[in-house]
Amino acid sequence: MAACEFESLEKSLESHLPEAELAEVKRVLYGKETEKLDLPVCAVEAASERDFELKGYRFEAAPEQLRPPRRIRVGLIQHRIVLPTDAPILDQVTAMHSRLGEVVEVAAMCGVNMVCFQETWTMPFAFCTREKEPWTEFAESVEEGSTTRFCQELAKKYNMVVVSPILEREGLHSTLWNTAVVISNSGHVLGKSRKNHIPRVGDFNESTYYMEGDTGHTVFQTQFGKIAVNICYGRHHPLNWFMYSMNGAEIIFNPSATVGALSEPMWPIEARNAAIANHCFTCAINRVGTEHFKSEFTSGDGKQAHHDFGHFYGSSYVAAPDGSRTPGLSRTRDGLLVVEMDLNLNRQISDKWSFKMTGRYAEYAEELTKAVRHDFKPMIVKE
Amino acid sequence: MAACEFESLEKSLESHLPEAELAEVKRVLYGKETEKLDLPVCAVEAASERDFELKGYRFEAAPEQLRPPRRIRVGLIQHRIVLPTDAPILDQVTAMHSRLGEVVEVAAMCGVNMVCFQETWTMPFAFCTREKEPWTEFAESVEEGSTTRFCQELAKKYNMVVVSPILEREGLHSTLWNTAVVISNSGHVLGKSRKNHIPRVGDFNESTYYMEGDTGHTVFQTQFGKIAVNICYGRHHPLNWFMYSMNGAEIIFNPSATVGALSEPMWPIEARNAAIANHCFTCAINRVGTEHFKSEFTSGDGKQAHHDFGHFYGSSYVAAPDGSRTPGLSRTRDGLLVVEMDLNLNRQISDKWSFKMTGRYAEYAEELTKAVRHDFKPMIVKE
Repeated sequence: MAACEFESLEKSLESHLPEAELAEVKRVLYGKETEKLDLPVCAVEAASERDFELKGYRFEAAPEQLRPPRRIRVGLIQHRIVLPTDAPILDQVTAMHSRLGEVVEVAAMCGVNMVCFQETWTMPFAFCTREKEPWTEFAESVEEGSTTRFCQELAKKYNMVVVSPILEREGLHSTLWNTAVVISNSGHVLGKSRKNHIPRVGDFNESTYYMEGDTGHTVFQTQFGKIAVNICYGRHHPLNWFMYSMNGAEIIFNPSATVGALSEPMWPIEARNAAIANHCFTCAINRVGTEHFKSEFTSGDGKQAHHDFGHFYGSSYVAAPDGSRTPGLSRTRDGLLVVEMDLNLNRQISDKWSFKMTGRYAEYAEELTKAVRHDFKPMIVKE
Repeated sequence: MAACEFESLEKSLESHLPEAELAEVKRVLYGKETEKLDLPVCAVEAASERDFELKGYRFEAAPEQLRPPRRIRVGLIQHRIVLPTDAPILDQVTAMHSRLGEVVEVAAMCGVNMVCFQETWTMPFAFCTREKEPWTEFAESVEEGSTTRFCQELAKKYNMVVVSPILEREGLHSTLWNTAVVISNSGHVLGKSRKNHIPRVGDFNESTYYMEGDTGHTVFQTQFGKIAVNICYGRHHPLNWFMYSMNGAEIIFNPSATVGALSEPMWPIEARNAAIANHCFTCAINRVGTEHFKSEFTSGDGKQAHHDFGHFYGSSYVAAPDGSRTPGLSRTRDGLLVVEMDLNLNRQISDKWSFKMTGRYAEYAEELTKAVRHDFKPMIVKE
């Protein structure tokens, strides 16, 4: 069975395991079962017509006496590119806008308050080629680009916060960044969050195109909760998640683009660990499909030059602070994952596990400050 | 199916999934397949006679031109208590010594260079009771306790590093600590590592008995590699793993005692995330069985007083820096997990993924230093 034919872990388990064992397997793998969300018939039908997967789940919190529930609905969208990578750039971008427009419309039918797209969603993930042209032409202004304008329209139309990760061109100095634009449900650009950690691994030649982000660990206070965006490779860095959480994030999005051979076994681990460790929700989003490029390129692995990056395996999911998670979207299809979460769960789990209180952060601040100095003496005991 | 009857995730998957799908499911769940280790017949027979599970796996690294492989074998031991919790203390400790002695002998037959026992391995995990007596009588001196002497004998006899997590009584001030004693293969006490983070969750009333450790993030340079010990609840704190790694740890042991209802879905996530994030091996060890106490106690959950803590689910495993992991030991039986690892893999994966280089630690040191101040202003953007 080729990796790109394997539809999803959950489907395999559900097809073959006897019921009692399935319940135990799921408990160990996913934690407390995430209830399925009833989605409106019109949404289910539209998703089917528009040929994308639609799944919905709910994370509940316990009722409290002094606070009402803070239930919101988040939408994660994963998709393949629409046109071939050698189609005219404007056509590619327009086709992607159009595709996402029809998915976001379904998200709106499902009552989604906040939607996040995948990393550099308007373009193929062309950084494997190391060609500057034509790919840097996909870069857009955060404030005035057509993609931001498109997202502002969606935000206003559907009263929805939109997180739109793009390739950014900062106009004054013509610098490029890998940036998530955060648009309020009023349609205003709340701000941007640039990718903090840039990979140099396999075909991920992104350091050829842009540098480490300079926006720190900004958190955005939206009407529906405090959110942050940890882009792609930043999920491998526990300190990155942690610092967003230290700044108050209740939901951390992780828009990504990653392929099976490289990272798939790590995918279910890292965002979920971050949700557990930081008493927050995390939302991991990955693109799907295989993208073919006209020019061949090598992957630094001694193998022959080739024209594609491998299979982007989708599998987008949401993890909760109690260690539970939703099943993933498909490994092969466009999809919308709608997740209702009661943000009260974060504080409830914090009160239960108390990682922020038992974390001894002041001591780590001291230790880390020492550890980054050139004269750092590691604490190593020898016989 | 009751949680304590479910033997292991792997067994369920292997019994029911068709071969081709099983391969994909295992790839997604466990990463690159960990080869089974051929263990000597005498060891397999002895384990069977002595009624404990014996499993062996191997993590390989690529050959290098300038460095020979650094293959070592690590043994993880999980076990239930031997005598009832109301037996005389000395009898309980002696019975546990005797039980571990016969498991370590099998580890020696398997060529194990380094063994680690579970948290406070000489005693029941009695901290749920909140009774001081008789449990504090299990505490021993790191330097002169009978358990350390017992481990020193094992270490010399088998030329094996022994990590022995005990309840420590520091003699001068009669203070208690949750401490791992690290004994060199020469039989010398290399030093100790005290539990850095103390839980206050569910039945884990450990903060009633001992305080946060004061030994920092000490790493022990043994003949077989640089090791560190992150005890139990410390695995929920990514900074704890990280700081051991910053001090040079190649293998981080996580001797634990944890129960199904509380933590089981988090168990496969946290130590494995630490191996990935820190380019090192991690070894998670949990006790097995249900321990009954004479006095009843409550669990702070509104439920009736009762006499046991719940089921300790074993499931000890080793995770590698490439994101792969071994299957777990059983959820219900005593067991020895023998893992051969080539420590060269750590640097190879670091060269591939480069988290330590892309980690921007100097910036985190500054941010964290600010974040722990009382006048910290979180970076929150509002509309």
